[in-house]
Amino acid sequence: MEDALEKQIAFIKEIDKLKYIQRKTRLFNSDRHENDAEHSWHLAMMAIVLSSHSNHEIDMLKVIKMLLIHDIVEIDAGDTFLFDTTKNHTNTEEELKAAERIFGILPEDQAKELIAIWTEFETGETKEAKFAKAMDRFEPMLQNASNNGGTWREFNVPYEAVIEKKQKIKDGATNIWDYARNMVDKYYGK
Amino acid sequence: MEDALEKQIAFIKEIDKLKYIQRKTRLFNSDRHENDAEHSWHLAMMAIVLSSHSNHEIDMLKVIKMLLIHDIVEIDAGDTFLFDTTKNHTNTEEELKAAERIFGILPEDQAKELIAIWTEFETGETKEAKFAKAMDRFEPMLQNASNNGGTWREFNVPYEAVIEKKQKIKDGATNIWDYARNMVDKYYGK
Ligand SMILES: [Ca+2]
Repeated sequence: MEDALEKQIAFIKEIDKLKYIQRKTRLFNSDRHENDAEHSWHLAMMAIVLSSHSNHEIDMLKVIKMLLIHDIVEIDAGDTFLFDTTKNHTNTEEELKAAERIFGILPEDQAKELIAIWTEFETGETKEAKFAKAMDRFEPMLQNASNNGGTWREFNVPYEAVIEKKQKIKDGATNIWDYARNMVDKYYGK
Repeated sequence: MEDALEKQIAFIKEIDKLKYIQRKTRLFNSDRHENDAEHSWHLAMMAIVLSSHSNHEIDMLKVIKMLLIHDIVEIDAGDTFLFDTTKNHTNTEEELKAAERIFGILPEDQAKELIAIWTEFETGETKEAKFAKAMDRFEPMLQNASNNGGTWREFNVPYEAVIEKKQKIKDGATNIWDYARNMVDKYYGK
């Protein structure tokens, strides 16, 4: 038990680093970049208040765990910007190594559980992963819309690229996608 | 449904303000103050990895909801420092008003649910509230220990005051209190 607690506390200290990982997106109506810890908190809150819009019955505890841990690998692997066309966005070797190192600080059974949940999120095939990913895709859209285009404007992202990258929201929550698409259409004057 | 979604999105935007509420405590081994959104994320992660140390069987989804929302009232009411002897730390009128205003942005059933969870946390009598509060008390202790005393040193908090304010950790998780008390004793040379 004491040995488990030491490992758990070492993990709790290690993940403090998520607070230093800056995202490209900015807070609502703001110039200040969001960090990954704030982002993870906000997604978990979104999942709680938007759960009734899920296309499927979902295990909320699992969804929230997914969202709280989904970016922890970025402590080692860094943030990959969704619209960066030079980067591979699938579950990379580097991210898997990061998951194994960071979750591996925990006692073995907990490390296994969290790596499995992270992998399930990344793979994106279960109902829970689809809804969690819908939250992850929707939050920066709300932020961009509040910041006169935000990263869409800053990086000259074409309308078609936004739709292509974001339309999977509908696999998790159809009417959130309707709302999101409307926001994009409005910003791009469609 | 559309009307509910508008209210939920208004709430999601409003709680972005939690990212601007600065705490007295600082990040691990750091001079940078922690904000309430980062803090809330970290407590939820702590609850996940430390759940086996709870004195009682607990509903983890409820614990995590408590921790994610527990400081949202500070958007209106501000952060109250635990060792500030000039302030009343019980569930204040001002905080209840804040809860009603902010959670009240949501559809009524959701507002009621979150106000009830927040009140349960504040009251601190259920098993879930005791464990959640143990997390809230333990995190700044870990931070202070990593920062050569942190707020204990900065505000000249006496040993007895730390023990008095923190010992309720044992109501939620006895062996986390043993660990925490040890850290305090070590810092104060007891
Ligand atoms: Ca990311």
